[in-house]
Amino acid sequence: MAKSRFEYVKQYERLDRLLPETYIVIRIDGKGFHKFTKKHDFEKPNDLRCLNLMNAAARVVMSEFTDIVLAYGDSDEYSFVWSKSTELYERRESKLVSHVCSLFTSAFVFNWPKHFDIPLLSLPSFDGRAVLYPNMKVLRDYLHWRQVDCHINNLYNTTFWMLILKGGFTNTQAEEYLKGTVSAEKHEILFSKFGINYNFEPEIYKKGSIWIREPIDQEWHQQDKKFSVKQKKKMVLSILHVSLIDDDFWTSRPFLEVLLQ
Amino acid sequence: MAKSRFEYVKQYERLDRLLPETYIVIRIDGKGFHKFTKKHDFEKPNDLRCLNLMNAAARVVMSEFTDIVLAYGDSDEYSFVWSKSTELYERRESKLVSHVCSLFTSAFVFNWPKHFDIPLLSLPSFDGRAVLYPNMKVLRDYLHWRQVDCHINNLYNTTFWMLILKGGFTNTQAEEYLKGTVSAEKHEILFSKFGINYNFEPEIYKKGSIWIREPIDQEWHQQDKKFSVKQKKKMVLSILHVSLIDDDFWTSRPFLEVLLQ
Amino acid sequence: MAKSRFEYVKQYERLDRLLPETYIVIRIDGKGFHKFTKKHDFEKPNDLRCLNLMNAAARVVMSEFTDIVLAYGDSDEYSFVWSKSTELYERRESKLVSHVCSLFTSAFVFNWPKHFDIPLLSLPSFDGRAVLYPNMKVLRDYLHWRQVDCHINNLYNTTFWMLILKGGFTNTQAEEYLKGTVSAEKHEILFSKFGINYNFEPEIYKKGSIWIREPIDQEWHQQDKKFSVKQKKKMVLSILHVSLIDDDFWTSRPFLEVLLQ
Amino acid sequence: MAKSRFEYVKQYERLDRLLPETYIVIRIDGKGFHKFTKKHDFEKPNDLRCLNLMNAAARVVMSEFTDIVLAYGDSDEYSFVWSKSTELYERRESKLVSHVCSLFTSAFVFNWPKHFDIPLLSLPSFDGRAVLYPNMKVLRDYLHWRQVDCHINNLYNTTFWMLILKGGFTNTQAEEYLKGTVSAEKHEILFSKFGINYNFEPEIYKKGSIWIREPIDQEWHQQDKKFSVKQKKKMVLSILHVSLIDDDFWTSRPFLEVLLQ
Repeated sequence: MAKSRFEYVKQYERLDRLLPETYIVIRIDGKGFHKFTKKHDFEKPNDLRCLNLMNAAARVVMSEFTDIVLAYGDSDEYSFVWSKSTELYERRESKLVSHVCSLFTSAFVFNWPKHFDIPLLSLPSFDGRAVLYPNMKVLRDYLHWRQVDCHINNLYNTTFWMLILKGGFTNTQAEEYLKGTVSAEKHEILFSKFGINYNFEPEIYKKGSIWIREPIDQEWHQQDKKFSVKQKKKMVLSILHVSLIDDDFWTSRPFLEVLLQ
Repeated sequence: MAKSRFEYVKQYERLDRLLPETYIVIRIDGKGFHKFTKKHDFEKPNDLRCLNLMNAAARVVMSEFTDIVLAYGDSDEYSFVWSKSTELYERRESKLVSHVCSLFTSAFVFNWPKHFDIPLLSLPSFDGRAVLYPNMKVLRDYLHWRQVDCHINNLYNTTFWMLILKGGFTNTQAEEYLKGTVSAEKHEILFSKFGINYNFEPEIYKKGSIWIREPIDQEWHQQDKKFSVKQKKKMVLSILHVSLIDDDFWTSRPFLEVLLQ
Repeated sequence: MAKSRFEYVKQYERLDRLLPETYIVIRIDGKGFHKFTKKHDFEKPNDLRCLNLMNAAARVVMSEFTDIVLAYGDSDEYSFVWSKSTELYERRESKLVSHVCSLFTSAFVFNWPKHFDIPLLSLPSFDGRAVLYPNMKVLRDYLHWRQVDCHINNLYNTTFWMLILKGGFTNTQAEEYLKGTVSAEKHEILFSKFGINYNFEPEIYKKGSIWIREPIDQEWHQQDKKFSVKQKKKMVLSILHVSLIDDDFWTSRPFLEVLLQ
Repeated sequence: MAKSRFEYVKQYERLDRLLPETYIVIRIDGKGFHKFTKKHDFEKPNDLRCLNLMNAAARVVMSEFTDIVLAYGDSDEYSFVWSKSTELYERRESKLVSHVCSLFTSAFVFNWPKHFDIPLLSLPSFDGRAVLYPNMKVLRDYLHWRQVDCHINNLYNTTFWMLILKGGFTNTQAEEYLKGTVSAEKHEILFSKFGINYNFEPEIYKKGSIWIREPIDQEWHQQDKKFSVKQKKKMVLSILHVSLIDDDFWTSRPFLEVLLQ
């Protein structure tokens, strides 16, 4: 096509290529979800419909971007972990972050009616960011950080909402009551006041959700250290609600480190 | 809330604050829209339903972000121009780009049924980028660039599709036929072969769409050089399909430069 | 020349092009100059030999880089202001900053013997940074910031060292004595205790040093709004010790704004 | 000290922190050294005085920055490799690059008279850049790249200058003669025409120079995987002219990988 004399404005674009051979994590977060959950009368402390919808949207993202190996989500956030050798969009940060964020949103809105009986009353949206992690240790620490955060928030919210829903506290009273309490004290409040053993709460609430890409082919041998394109195409997406922090998560799934290469 | 020992991973985040006092343009583009338009059997060369849906989604974005002064869209892309003094999200690039892109997508998917009789058969998505322009001249040249691009593409597409739809050409024949033709020749083909005077084609196709924020209060005087918060709140969004290239567009709307400050 | 299979490592370099049409300021600062001045027994509060050497080094930098229009220096720092249209090194940040910093250092060490009787006893070095300013207002405010800083420091140092050198104070006593004093009080201390009228102190200490590039050709007319290459080549470098803050500095030298374009 | 109302201009500075836990390589290059070597009548193809001066300047840089573990230089360039955990200047790119470049320049100019009988006739200067390498493999490939480059250039230059100095060729004739020749052919030209066995050329020309930081304490055990501050302080700088490409370079010096952590 013909080029115009205004074409020069393209020079103002910045090349935002992310450092090669480094794990890219793209984390998206719900914008103004406090208001959004109120408007749609979400169940407290956790709304399973919304978690399922978040997970469904994350699955769409993982299906589209085959270089995403693993994703971790809880509450209104999701982190997508890419193979460190991905060259998608030449690793351009804006393109990667905005496309992931857009596709997740698209899937969230599109699939809403499958998870909620009420229609959308306001538009959900998300923001995103990319963070680079140069080695497995710090990448795993990133995931631990998000999972510990999930645990801390969920223990707090579970106790907080029990105090309100079953204990007749006001919001302010519940906040005041929990101020400065440590983990063990919240466990104790749940048990002594409401007969709830926190350890028996659903894993999806306590651990969040982990999507992984895994080989169906049991013949894959770790010593191969690489998957063929054919093997990759036959992989399936599985969702887990387990601890990422134990070494066991990784040692029992050696294909994850291979895929992340 | 308690902080975990994994919190240190936050230090790997990069602060991506955009240079202050510089116009931010966020442009979003449809991903794989060639396939998307085929799947949904879009009308050629332009599908007015989709343009209306794009414009509706852009309106949502402008309503949400009051620091966006003007937006320009055509085909599957939209550019949002921010006041150069905006401090939203502390001007963090990732947050601005990803949130605009996400909200646009949300509105696009949500409003689809109002514009199309058929349901969505695949998920639409967009990517985005931010570009900085340090003065009005180059900002206006950016907008000219997009509008000239719209014109060039539309003239080509109109001729190309007439050759196919009315002229019985195959895709390859039409491409071959138009190779190397200049503007005047395409005008001539349209007129002589199909009786179409390109100048009478709908402005929305030839010029694209421009959303502006404008004061309803006719008492506003340019010499004030500033709008009060009260005046800003009463502004309305208007859509135009006119030339951005003429000085007249700006001189007849002096409030635009004031808002862009 | 032949290329090796290791060439791929070049892809890890980041393109750090600075936004076009924006004023680039490169500021360099002495590293560990507190120790350096002690080692070389600098005169207090100001060592004119060193200021002259700094100015000589800055002159070398301005002679080498003809796109630098103006430079401001005081104490152990110097700021170089570039024409906003410079395309030197394709505006690559690292190249610009490091080369300016290196050449300044080279000139400083090379010219040391012309300004000091004692030889260098340790190696001086500088660090540098680039900052972008998108318009004249903020660029001028940058220069004001440095000049006000020069004034504040010089008034403090002059009073501080008089207390020590003439007043018999120890360092700690002088610091204690000046804690919380405002400008007028320092003026008063200088005058009442030491008979010094600060206003009569040398301008180079109070205002710092400004190098400008100026046309010798008096026929240049501002309305031309541009210099020819020939006119530029004939320009001379002049040093001033005056206020940058008054409008008068700029209105009486209209060629500066033209050169900065 | 008092703060001025112009202080806000600091907000225009960009935070350029380099990704943590990643190897930083700072490479400096002579600016316009072709002209500089002519002016100072350098010996061809290699001027040992200049190489020794470059090495002396690099030693100064390594002495100053104890987080630099290794440096590689040849011709008018030097690469400094930092421990990946360095937090000097909070890993701010501009500060690191400009300070290294400035100190190197300072040492080069200061030490010139120790290496050359003639005085400096023009000012030498260098530019610099930082590149990040996320793992040992690519870091080693970077070093290989530079060493292979040294070898290719030196073989070419040695042959080129023999043709001129001993063979009576003009520059153009020598260029023409060597065009398209492979390594083996240059070896053959040197041997058959000038009786020179390239393999016996000095290692400093063929391999370049490598500064390393090494423990004098032979008691250090690799299994410690870490040096104490006390051990680090006692380390010495050694210069080598050997192949970096062989594994042997690294396996026989296990302390390098430990220091690079």
